[in-house]
Amino acid sequence: MGRSNMAVNLVVPDTLLPVRGVHLSVAEAGIKKADRKDVLVIRLDKGNTVAGVFTQNRFCAAPVQICKAHLDAGVQIRALVINTGNANAGTGEDGRSRALSVCRALAAELDCQIEQILPFSTGVILEPLPADKILAALPVRREAGWKEAAEAIMTTDTLPKAVSRQVLLDGETATITGIAKGAGMIHPNMATMLGFIATDAPITRPVLNQLVREVADVSFNCISVDGDTSTNDSFILMSTGAAATPLIDSSEHPAYAILKAALTGVAIELAQAIVRDGEGATKFITVKVEGGRSVAECKAVAYAIARSPLVKTAFFASDPNLGRLLCAIGYSEMSDLDVDRLELYLDDVLVACDGGRHPAYREEDGQRVMRQDEITVRVVLNRGVAEATVWTCDFSYEYVKINADYRS
Amino acid sequence: MGRSNMAVNLVVPDTLLPVRGVHLSVAEAGIKKADRKDVLVIRLDKGNTVAGVFTQNRFCAAPVQICKAHLDAGVQIRALVINTGNANAGTGEDGRSRALSVCRALAAELDCQIEQILPFSTGVILEPLPADKILAALPVRREAGWKEAAEAIMTTDTLPKAVSRQVLLDGETATITGIAKGAGMIHPNMATMLGFIATDAPITRPVLNQLVREVADVSFNCISVDGDTSTNDSFILMSTGAAATPLIDSSEHPAYAILKAALTGVAIELAQAIVRDGEGATKFITVKVEGGRSVAECKAVAYAIARSPLVKTAFFASDPNLGRLLCAIGYSEMSDLDVDRLELYLDDVLVACDGGRHPAYREEDGQRVMRQDEITVRVVLNRGVAEATVWTCDFSYEYVKINADYRS
Repeated sequence: MGRSNMAVNLVVPDTLLPVRGVHLSVAEAGIKKADRKDVLVIRLDKGNTVAGVFTQNRFCAAPVQICKAHLDAGVQIRALVINTGNANAGTGEDGRSRALSVCRALAAELDCQIEQILPFSTGVILEPLPADKILAALPVRREAGWKEAAEAIMTTDTLPKAVSRQVLLDGETATITGIAKGAGMIHPNMATMLGFIATDAPITRPVLNQLVREVADVSFNCISVDGDTSTNDSFILMSTGAAATPLIDSSEHPAYAILKAALTGVAIELAQAIVRDGEGATKFITVKVEGGRSVAECKAVAYAIARSPLVKTAFFASDPNLGRLLCAIGYSEMSDLDVDRLELYLDDVLVACDGGRHPAYREEDGQRVMRQDEITVRVVLNRGVAEATVWTCDFSYEYVKINADYRS
Repeated sequence: MGRSNMAVNLVVPDTLLPVRGVHLSVAEAGIKKADRKDVLVIRLDKGNTVAGVFTQNRFCAAPVQICKAHLDAGVQIRALVINTGNANAGTGEDGRSRALSVCRALAAELDCQIEQILPFSTGVILEPLPADKILAALPVRREAGWKEAAEAIMTTDTLPKAVSRQVLLDGETATITGIAKGAGMIHPNMATMLGFIATDAPITRPVLNQLVREVADVSFNCISVDGDTSTNDSFILMSTGAAATPLIDSSEHPAYAILKAALTGVAIELAQAIVRDGEGATKFITVKVEGGRSVAECKAVAYAIARSPLVKTAFFASDPNLGRLLCAIGYSEMSDLDVDRLELYLDDVLVACDGGRHPAYREEDGQRVMRQDEITVRVVLNRGVAEATVWTCDFSYEYVKINADYRS
């Protein structure tokens, strides 16, 4: 797809920790292009628990429909199979049938039920999944590391995205490693975001179900405009239980908060990596809204800024055209906003208050901040104590180029 | 701003009809650039009625606040004064004071009250209005025609937008002429749209108030994503009463429907002109959603398509990447959409039904339609009889260029 490497301060992880009980393998199935890793299989040892959150898009892809059904079936998951190059979305009954054929082949290989396999796809929508190519690439025997796994799920990503962390729980070490893909996050409601985080800490399924939602809400859902609304977005949390750490069977368990903080840290770093690698991105923007009455209203204001094409082109141009920020705040979904009470900051520079530009604001100060490649927009609503943070990137020629050329 | 002329099939009107009772004059005040018509004054003879609809943005500009107050004051309007080059938005109390100083000067010139003047501004947000330059350009004595008036309110528009029409009411001729400006309509909730339509047909104020809303709902509000949400959007309907046509004092009056149809035709043509001149536009897209249970749900689906950057870049590339259309439909605000029941057409080509691609769909048919510069996307929901139409354009490199360079 000819993307130049434009990711904003995104570094390739050098050390990724294996997670006991997780086995990775990759293949080149030639789904869309030859000589490209495009299939990843994640096998899990017995005794694991798995939970997920999925797109709310009503044209949700065939693999998403199947994942939900298989997780609901209550059987233990044995493997995840992920392909790039084709989203298997907008493909109706035939798409479900093709995704199930991949699950069936992998289940046969692993000698398990079809419901124990979770399928994932990302790529072009509305085209039939070339399941035969994936079947021909199975069984996938060669063991791979997490970095190779992260590479195998890339589409327009310029770099693989992976993070590892370790945490002590009751004196024992638990390991967390996660990978993600996604780069269309300039308008994230259209992009396919896949995230997979594994830990060897034992966690019961109900607790894992709670964790996956809580973690997503402050990470992957903060780079998304209105929830997970692409056809294929999926975020999966896996616990193999192979570590000697105590079983976390309740959110009241002392280890819960510690593990949650570590998982959240990994998820936020992966989510931010998606933004840093945003299609055409040249800047990484943090939008923080404080002093609201609820997290929801803070998010509404933050999203209005984060998705405004005029704001984003101004960031691209390093142009402190800050009226565009006020305009976006003004049309956010927060219906009773009092514009005279809010304050707007660019990093440490107070730009606007009392309904207009701050008297001491100088264009050169705004210009200085706008030239940076990492910028924080801070809005103080001055009406409560809630806050929310959303991450986004700027909007460049390259974005149009990437998306105009995507299928060619 | 260096825009190349890219408007899609937009022709400059050659014959524009004067409206009795309306007097136009333009000036070069040098607000943002020298040697450019940037002030328009529309004077109305006594006996007129005026009504308007305005942006819902809570950072609404100072002139919008004043327009609303002056229209609510119930006095007869004597003149409208419109400047480009500065939006006088996000300017707080000082902005209101500067807008009022312009009204005061014009009121003194016309020997009327300040409340009888309506001010309008469009341009950069968050910068103080150079009211002194406008005051220096007043009084504006040179009479201008409608085409010159349309030119005087242009910002990034490549062509003036004006339409005339005549209609027989009870055997007498009424004339309608309207002008509009706006070109940022790729994401119209951020753009400033100004529209002014005058007729010499006599209409009472209550009826005019109803008309302005009904006309806006099927014209200017159909190129807008979520209502009139920029800081400055305004649409004004003026009746001078100078024609010999019957006074329309009720929506039951036989002439009401005829005049409304003519006004709506003018408004739709102006609204479409804004889209045709959309920043960076190379294609004019009509999105028609039929078979819904309500107009609101049809509009929700149409807007989801019309604002999707991925859909719009695909149109720019003439790429029938139609999965992006299904994806946009899937994340529209219509919560109980049954994707298996809807049909998706590109002009006459049936693309998708039964939740996936139509078996007889051929890429070459989609490609043929996508290459056109005027394309209709039609979605049939098959669950009711309501319908809605929205107009939009594609999304090109040029859009980013225009908006990155806007202030330079």
